[in-house]
Amino acid sequence: MRMLHGLETHEIVGIVKCVGSNVQRFKTGDHIGVGTYVNSCRECEYCDDGLEVQCSKGAVFTFDGIDTDGTVTKGGYSSHIVVHERYCYKIPENYPLASAAPLLCAGITVWTPMMGHKMNQPGKSLGVIGLGGLGHMAVKFGKSFGLKVTVFSTSLSKKDEALNLLKADNFIISSNNEEMKAMEKSLDFIINTASGDIPFDQYLSLLKSGGVLSLVGFPSEVKFHPASLNRGMKSISGSLTGGTKQTQEMLDYCANHEIYPNIEIVPIQYANEALERLIKKDVKYRFVIDIANSLK
Amino acid sequence: MRMLHGLETHEIVGIVKCVGSNVQRFKTGDHIGVGTYVNSCRECEYCDDGLEVQCSKGAVFTFDGIDTDGTVTKGGYSSHIVVHERYCYKIPENYPLASAAPLLCAGITVWTPMMGHKMNQPGKSLGVIGLGGLGHMAVKFGKSFGLKVTVFSTSLSKKDEALNLLKADNFIISSNNEEMKAMEKSLDFIINTASGDIPFDQYLSLLKSGGVLSLVGFPSEVKFHPASLNRGMKSISGSLTGGTKQTQEMLDYCANHEIYPNIEIVPIQYANEALERLIKKDVKYRFVIDIANSLK
Repeated sequence: MRMLHGLETHEIVGIVKCVGSNVQRFKTGDHIGVGTYVNSCRECEYCDDGLEVQCSKGAVFTFDGIDTDGTVTKGGYSSHIVVHERYCYKIPENYPLASAAPLLCAGITVWTPMMGHKMNQPGKSLGVIGLGGLGHMAVKFGKSFGLKVTVFSTSLSKKDEALNLLKADNFIISSNNEEMKAMEKSLDFIINTASGDIPFDQYLSLLKSGGVLSLVGFPSEVKFHPASLNRGMKSISGSLTGGTKQTQEMLDYCANHEIYPNIEIVPIQYANEALERLIKKDVKYRFVIDIANSLK
Repeated sequence: MRMLHGLETHEIVGIVKCVGSNVQRFKTGDHIGVGTYVNSCRECEYCDDGLEVQCSKGAVFTFDGIDTDGTVTKGGYSSHIVVHERYCYKIPENYPLASAAPLLCAGITVWTPMMGHKMNQPGKSLGVIGLGGLGHMAVKFGKSFGLKVTVFSTSLSKKDEALNLLKADNFIISSNNEEMKAMEKSLDFIINTASGDIPFDQYLSLLKSGGVLSLVGFPSEVKFHPASLNRGMKSISGSLTGGTKQTQEMLDYCANHEIYPNIEIVPIQYANEALERLIKKDVKYRFVIDIANSLK
C-alpha cells in the first residue's frame, strides 16, 4: 500500500496497491491502516476474541519483531508493506487518511481501557494525566462520550489548548496541592498517559469509591500505599494498544462522530527535526510523515 | 443481644433480646450478626446501593468510632449491644452462631472482591496468597464456586491443611522460584490476604492476560513495574469488607452451601493467650470468644 504514517513506525495508513487471491475484506484502492502488530497465532483464546495483541504465543510487532517465518518486521518507513488482511483496518472513505494514522496507536491505546472500564457513560467524570498524543485523544473521546473531563498537566502552557481547543471542562496543574486537594473523591476514572513518574497515592485520592485509574504510560515504577486502593475499593488497571475488533470499532466511531487527532504532516526529510521537537514536547499532538510524497 | 464473636471486636453474633417499636426485620430470639460498622448516612449513593461501608460521610465503625450522636462505639466485648436493624444480619437458623462470627469480617472481606470481580465462574483458576482467617475463607469460597485453587504460602506447615482439609488443588511455597515460574500466566485471579510484603511483579506474572490481583491485606506498600500490568492488561484492585446487601447474601450462601469457617471457641479469660498465639500464627483459623458463657 501507498503510505502515510505517524512518526512512530507502527501507525501506518495507505492505499491498497494489490491483494492476494484469498483476500476478502479489501480490494485495490481501498484506504487501510496497520497498527502495532502484523501477526499472531490466530488460534488461542485471545486471537479468537479479536484481542490478538494479547496472543498466547505473542503478537508479532510491526517493526523489529520476528515473524512466524523468521523474518524481521520493518515497520512503515517504506513505500510499501505486505500485511495479512486480518491485521489491516478499513479507513472509512470520508475520513482523512493522515488523521487515521495516530488512531492506530495513540487512539486505540486510550480507547481500549476507556471502553473496557465503561468510561463511555455520559455524566461520569474523567481525569486525563498528561496532554500529549495519547492524552489529547483521551480528552476527545471523553468529551464525545459526554464525560466531564479534567486535564492534569505539569505545564501551564497546555491550559489554553486543553480548555479552548480540546474543550476539556477543567485544567489542573498537578503540582498545585490546593487544587488537587479540592478534587478529592470527585472522579470516576483517571487515565494516566504520562510517561513520567506521578504521585499515585495523590491521584488515587481523587477517585470516588470504586474508581479506576487506567495506566497506559510507562513511569519508572508504580508505588502507593495499599490503603489508597483498599479504603475506596479502587483499582489500577494496565492496558496496551488493543485488538483488531476494537481497533476497527474505534476507527468507525471516529468517522461517525467526526473525531480527528490534531496532527502536523511532515516529509521524511524532517524526521530528525521532528524528533528533536518531540523531545522538547513541541508537537500538537502527533507528527504524521508523508512517506509517499517524500519519496517522489 | 447475647453475644459471641471473633477475637476482633467487630465480628459479633448473638440472639435478639428485645427490639424497638419500629424494627421490622427482627424479633426477640432471632439469631443475628453485626459486622465492622454500625451506622452510616443512609442517604448517599453508596448507602442507597447497600454499600454502606463506602458511605460518603464515612461509615461509623463498630468500635472506637464516633457515632452520629457523638458517642464512641465500643464493639462487642460486652453482654449486649444496641444496633440499628439496617446494620444487623439474619443468621439462618440452621447455621451455628459461632461459625457465623468470622464471616462478618474475614468472610465478607474476601467475598466482596470475589463477587465483584466475578471469581465465581466454575473452571477459572484462583491463587490465594496467605492462609489465615481471610485466606482459608477464600479457599472455601473458591472451591465452592468450582474454581481451581492454588494456595501460596511462606510456610510449608500449611501444606497438609491446604490440600487435605481445605481441598485446595495446589500448594506453592512462594520462595520457590522454580515452582512460581512454572505458574506463569496460569491464573485468572489472585487474592492477596497476606499483610506482609510480597513481590508484586512476580505475582502479577502468574496472571493470565486480563487477570485481576485483589488486594485485601495491608502490606507496607504496593510497588511494581508498570509493564507488569500494561503488557497483559492486568489490574490490581483494593477492597475493604463489604456492604449490608452482600453481607446478607454471603451469610445465606454459606448456610445454603454448608460453608463454615474453621474456628476455635475460647472464653474471654483466654484472650491474652489467644493474642499470643495469633502473633505466633498458631490459630486455625479464627478464635471466637464466647462472651455470654464467659460472663456467667
